[in-house]
Amino acid sequence: MAHVVIVGGGFGGLAVAKRLAKQRGLAVTLVDRRNFHVFQPLLYQVATGGLSPADICAPLRSVLAPYKNIRTVMAEVTGFDLAGRRVSLDHGELAYDYLVVAAGARHHYFGHEDWENLAPGLKTIEDATEIRRRVLSAFEAAENEPDVERRRGLLTFLIVGGGPTGVELAGTLGEIANDTLREDFRSFRPEEARILLIESGPRILSAFPDHLAAAAERSLLALGVRVRSGIAVAAIDDAGISMANGERIPSKTVLWAAGVKASPLGAMLGAELDRAGRVIVTQTCQLPGRPEVFVLGDMAALKDMPLPGVAPVAMQQGRYVADAIGGLLMNRELKPFSYLNKGNLATIGRAKAIADFGKLQISGWAAWMLWLFVHIMYLVGFRNRIQVFVHWAFQYFTFNRGARLITGEKSAT
Amino acid sequence: MAHVVIVGGGFGGLAVAKRLAKQRGLAVTLVDRRNFHVFQPLLYQVATGGLSPADICAPLRSVLAPYKNIRTVMAEVTGFDLAGRRVSLDHGELAYDYLVVAAGARHHYFGHEDWENLAPGLKTIEDATEIRRRVLSAFEAAENEPDVERRRGLLTFLIVGGGPTGVELAGTLGEIANDTLREDFRSFRPEEARILLIESGPRILSAFPDHLAAAAERSLLALGVRVRSGIAVAAIDDAGISMANGERIPSKTVLWAAGVKASPLGAMLGAELDRAGRVIVTQTCQLPGRPEVFVLGDMAALKDMPLPGVAPVAMQQGRYVADAIGGLLMNRELKPFSYLNKGNLATIGRAKAIADFGKLQISGWAAWMLWLFVHIMYLVGFRNRIQVFVHWAFQYFTFNRGARLITGEKSAT
Repeated sequence: MAHVVIVGGGFGGLAVAKRLAKQRGLAVTLVDRRNFHVFQPLLYQVATGGLSPADICAPLRSVLAPYKNIRTVMAEVTGFDLAGRRVSLDHGELAYDYLVVAAGARHHYFGHEDWENLAPGLKTIEDATEIRRRVLSAFEAAENEPDVERRRGLLTFLIVGGGPTGVELAGTLGEIANDTLREDFRSFRPEEARILLIESGPRILSAFPDHLAAAAERSLLALGVRVRSGIAVAAIDDAGISMANGERIPSKTVLWAAGVKASPLGAMLGAELDRAGRVIVTQTCQLPGRPEVFVLGDMAALKDMPLPGVAPVAMQQGRYVADAIGGLLMNRELKPFSYLNKGNLATIGRAKAIADFGKLQISGWAAWMLWLFVHIMYLVGFRNRIQVFVHWAFQYFTFNRGARLITGEKSAT
Repeated sequence: MAHVVIVGGGFGGLAVAKRLAKQRGLAVTLVDRRNFHVFQPLLYQVATGGLSPADICAPLRSVLAPYKNIRTVMAEVTGFDLAGRRVSLDHGELAYDYLVVAAGARHHYFGHEDWENLAPGLKTIEDATEIRRRVLSAFEAAENEPDVERRRGLLTFLIVGGGPTGVELAGTLGEIANDTLREDFRSFRPEEARILLIESGPRILSAFPDHLAAAAERSLLALGVRVRSGIAVAAIDDAGISMANGERIPSKTVLWAAGVKASPLGAMLGAELDRAGRVIVTQTCQLPGRPEVFVLGDMAALKDMPLPGVAPVAMQQGRYVADAIGGLLMNRELKPFSYLNKGNLATIGRAKAIADFGKLQISGWAAWMLWLFVHIMYLVGFRNRIQVFVHWAFQYFTFNRGARLITGEKSAT
């Protein structure tokens, strides 16, 4: 019986596993260092106190429990022996006939790795609760700060990067300041908060058509978020940001949404990487010269086929790779992967979004309803769907966000 | 205008604040080092992956936002100047006319403070997620452990202390092993897990009548939990427990539910303390010789009036103290506090509980429905009620527990 080892329980890895569960005569092992899958598109909701971590996570074992040919191993991958067809783990190792590597991406600071603590990014549950802690702690500190200038720094929130994640974070912060916390403080008005979305490119949401990005910018402005585009960050310290044009913006809370870098597991494969650390693979997601090794999702750069780093790409590649392994078992020749773009969505706070389906391009409330529907439908696990729906219904009618807990270690901020 | 400072946003402190909100001509400041209230009776549900932290927490600011005469300060109390009527905080200080101290309790290791890391107790949200991490990590490690003896240690869970918290933890662990994780593992059967509830007294649930405690013990047994009473713990190390009679029980997961000690803020008041660190106060909850200082809840021992350390006592004392402050303002003489015991409840896993209302004593499903109703009704915040109800309804019908996330630092365990 052939043994498939999948590294990573994200959208890509889970899609491979579920598809292979229907394949007879295969044993599958899924390795992840965490015991849960994270629904990354909603991480910003955890970072802003709208949802709890468990609402957007699903224990991998229970997701895969029904499939008796799949074994789940919680372990850290420490290396690959491609010639010997083995994966080394922090405890033990796994032999494979087929290997699928789908370990995703982290933030990219473009050579400024020292910015990571000053401007955290949003990729893991711990990132999200850390951002939540910083944002809420800044409001708490402002309540106790009599000095006007220092309070201004505490109430200034800078988001670097105007892609969908940056826009979602900024919009939600605007909502928090203007609605959620409206009655909570006594020594300042929360709408004194300044929220700035900084984008080095000419405009935000570059993957969307001009007029939709402009609609998003108007929605952001209505939430009190100012967009500063065409301006690059030169330096970040614990008191704020210095821009490339010499401007200085004092702020105690800087969030990073400016770019991603593929998992370091790519380098361990010994293959060629692109500038973002992604493994360059064939259009069949195979490692050149190693047809039994597949790389997919945010970790993979398909040769001459640029693809966005979004969940639908990873999921479609996952299903494709599962079928490709079936094809190899039958000695069939593989057709190249092709991505079916079903549309792009981005949300901007409560009841506003933009949607681009090629011919159909909409913004506003209708786009937001669509965004809501898509995200609830794709959430892994029936329970999470009900939970998230209840949370959102509650938020929608009351403007309240219940998961506003400051937990974890106090940092210097 | 008289200024009341309340230290602590637990059941007691919140009850004082809400009652004083209706009192004219008073300014109130509530100080807590956390920004949220914790519904402690359900902490064990977070520790066992049934609920998320935010489900049982409510941001103090939003609870108190409607009351314009109440100010919330997130700060750590560092000392009291009773003569000068001032409270020192980690940043700044507060002057008061009336002071209410209600900072609760922590675990009590009875001189074995070195056991705290080996056998964590359950008092804070961080305690709960740490216990959750340890329990789930033990199952994960067992899946990777080929050695039978070592696996037995990983699958042995010891709970020290047979009060309601210990019983609830043990029962829920039994449920997890027998139902929730039933299909999740491949190299052992989760019901191989041994769960032992260790009580040094002659029987568990000493606050309940004999026959109800016996019913609880039968329910525990049905969940695979064995009760060992009349046996004391002599030593705890990272491989298990040594009992006073020389018996050795290997276990990687020991949980502590054997006793509580009042907050160290009691000692800072410079008053007489009892053995559990509680401040000895008059039957009017006042500090002897300091009629403007009240202590209540788990921190207070009323002279010659022994009371259990439960939420209803703290809430009733909170309302009593608020009225007493009103009385002092009117120069009225205070009547002693009297506790109206509305009944005792304890739950044992899914669909089993015991209830003692004096004449009416019930066990089983009816007691559990009652427990459910009472706990949902007392949850702070409308949203939390709906959330918790949805979680429980889901758990009840599917045996699933969705908040099974291993988060935070890996410990040596």
